[in-house]
Amino acid sequence: MGEARKTSNTHRVSRRAMLQAGIGAALALPTAARGKEEDLVPEAMRVPGVPASPYGMPSRFEDKAVRLLTPLSTISPGTGSARTPLHLLDGIITPSGLHYERHHNGVPDIDPARHILLVHGMVREPLEFSMEALLRYPRTSRLAFLECAGNSGANAAQEPPQTSVDLIHGLVSCSEWTGVPLKLLLDEAAIVDGAEWLLIEGGDASALSRSIPLAEAYKYGMLALYQNGERLRPEQGYPVRFFMPGWEGSLNVKWLRRIKLTRQPTFTKEETSKYTQLQPDGVARQFDFVMGVKSVILSPSVGMRLPEKGFYQISGLAWSGHGRVRDVKITTDGGNSWSQAELEEPVLPQCLVRFRFGWHWDGGPTVLQSLATDEGGHMQPTHSAWKAQYAPGQGYHYNAIQSWRVEADGVVKNVHA
Amino acid sequence: MGEARKTSNTHRVSRRAMLQAGIGAALALPTAARGKEEDLVPEAMRVPGVPASPYGMPSRFEDKAVRLLTPLSTISPGTGSARTPLHLLDGIITPSGLHYERHHNGVPDIDPARHILLVHGMVREPLEFSMEALLRYPRTSRLAFLECAGNSGANAAQEPPQTSVDLIHGLVSCSEWTGVPLKLLLDEAAIVDGAEWLLIEGGDASALSRSIPLAEAYKYGMLALYQNGERLRPEQGYPVRFFMPGWEGSLNVKWLRRIKLTRQPTFTKEETSKYTQLQPDGVARQFDFVMGVKSVILSPSVGMRLPEKGFYQISGLAWSGHGRVRDVKITTDGGNSWSQAELEEPVLPQCLVRFRFGWHWDGGPTVLQSLATDEGGHMQPTHSAWKAQYAPGQGYHYNAIQSWRVEADGVVKNVHA
Repeated sequence: MGEARKTSNTHRVSRRAMLQAGIGAALALPTAARGKEEDLVPEAMRVPGVPASPYGMPSRFEDKAVRLLTPLSTISPGTGSARTPLHLLDGIITPSGLHYERHHNGVPDIDPARHILLVHGMVREPLEFSMEALLRYPRTSRLAFLECAGNSGANAAQEPPQTSVDLIHGLVSCSEWTGVPLKLLLDEAAIVDGAEWLLIEGGDASALSRSIPLAEAYKYGMLALYQNGERLRPEQGYPVRFFMPGWEGSLNVKWLRRIKLTRQPTFTKEETSKYTQLQPDGVARQFDFVMGVKSVILSPSVGMRLPEKGFYQISGLAWSGHGRVRDVKITTDGGNSWSQAELEEPVLPQCLVRFRFGWHWDGGPTVLQSLATDEGGHMQPTHSAWKAQYAPGQGYHYNAIQSWRVEADGVVKNVHA
Repeated sequence: MGEARKTSNTHRVSRRAMLQAGIGAALALPTAARGKEEDLVPEAMRVPGVPASPYGMPSRFEDKAVRLLTPLSTISPGTGSARTPLHLLDGIITPSGLHYERHHNGVPDIDPARHILLVHGMVREPLEFSMEALLRYPRTSRLAFLECAGNSGANAAQEPPQTSVDLIHGLVSCSEWTGVPLKLLLDEAAIVDGAEWLLIEGGDASALSRSIPLAEAYKYGMLALYQNGERLRPEQGYPVRFFMPGWEGSLNVKWLRRIKLTRQPTFTKEETSKYTQLQPDGVARQFDFVMGVKSVILSPSVGMRLPEKGFYQISGLAWSGHGRVRDVKITTDGGNSWSQAELEEPVLPQCLVRFRFGWHWDGGPTVLQSLATDEGGHMQPTHSAWKAQYAPGQGYHYNAIQSWRVEADGVVKNVHA
């Protein structure tokens, strides 16, 4: 296909075609300019392709779709995070290779044949589970998001960051998780009276550990063994992680090695020095587990430039740790008017939902926002309402409405509206 | 963790623990045999782990979870298939790296900046779509299975193959597909009266092409651009494939380059020499598009051996090209009695459904079967009822009930029951 006939998305919009399409899109080119028929057979059709492969990878032309790495320690290279490139994805599933990461001392290399899960503390019979044994227990599956408590925290700053939607909101991902219900193991070990908390500890070099109330963990906790069909990836906790749908990421302890039943919380460093939120009165919120209702428009978003006025499909993600997203409203005029976005099926509890909304941009400056409400009636706060809940400098559990300003030249900016 | 304390799944089942667990599983070991505390800290916790990575891969300990390659031509290495290792997966999502493949002349290497999709034939305005332009059209997402018409055909043989469930049934996979509704492009090109079929052609060296009725393609056809969140993999049709949920795999033309509107079917070689089914009266079924209702127990399945009598979770997949799976019944006594399996949510149209069923094996020989019915009332036939529909040697659209015989020693065989 010769360069001369390459189509382009800067093709002027034809009014007639816009009306025909009903959507205002008319980005195709008529074929009038095409040349000799033999020129139309592309190179790829003239040579046999490569055979099937044991394990596939993305196209070499998609090498920008990678996680964005943020090392957080010069002493320990394994401490840091990696964000999902949300704006390059579509749908609700995050491919496992692009699921966000947050490690406190790197990803351990664990041989499942040597890994043991211990259930002990306030139980009648402390038990050890080999991975071979654990894989024989009944399993269950569910689609659910996972979000770091620190996700979107960059937006808590006075000046909204002009980076990318991935760097601001990319510590959330969504997978199908499959594993053994925690309650099966707890029943087998036989909980003794008075146990009300669990200590959950990872088998990494940080021994990351968190305290979780027994009642909720018993109901909803899972020992996740599979992610998106296949066994967990190393960076997601292989060979087994704790999974608690809708609760903050760090509770979903990776490389799970120990569950101890206790009377009270253990007050580990990850729930005292970190993962608490200081309020204006100087008292910190602790054990604030559930990730609030949130939504974010991914396209368009900060750092992009709309090439011309005309039709755009606004597209983004919404989620709530409390349950299902009930609706997502969109404004394309800075809050003067709101419309319902279309939610793609299935809309599942504690799962990402893809929303879409058709928009004609008239070429003038404006502000775009999305506002999610969940089935429990929780609604995203404005930036200033969110800020009022906390002392300055706090950033955990940021879930305020995201505002994108579209300038007259099509450039999209991050604003606190 | 010392070798001496390694737990094992051959641990004898304790009656008390079985009762406690309610599920009969009691595979954990008591911790009584454990040694000094310092021995309990595994190696992985004594050294920092590796940092986050741009694109993740499975654990090195999971190197058996790969596609099973079957080259079909000594002349053309790109011609063949690769099956999904279903029995090593769980849930409904197939990771894109393990999605089945079937190529007729290999996987082309296509630069999206040079790829053009042509819509022509019986339209008022033939159009060319660059990938850049196509990516600006409204998109929609759905979870759906994709199945090769030849899947499970090995079971049509007189002697049931004693291979593996993957080699028999592994030409089905399930993804979240996101793309542009076909109707948007057809409306823009403006269909002329009398057009009733589409010719859909791929940009690979086999120029794979199929005819599809316009009415259904207009309603349900999608130009898929994303699979499981990210852009299509090369072996799944990058940069764009046709997607028709529930219809036989080869219609979902990869590397899509041309859609031609026609009055009648084109009768390409993929719908004359292949993908037709000869009936006993010598007349072939042609254009038999929809993949019928089917189910298969993946665990246990042929080639496995149950290590001991006791509790097993029977687990498998069901699907129907006609719509939603309504129910899956299980027999563990060769058809004397049937029970409902549990279907994991969400149960979606033209999508894999994971079913599960708790089973106590008493150690005697028996036959396991699953029987799926869809919302349209379609039900899987028996092996002999399926065979009666076709001439000898036919194998496309095989969807009969799969029977696994469990021998007294726990070995699982494939049988025509």
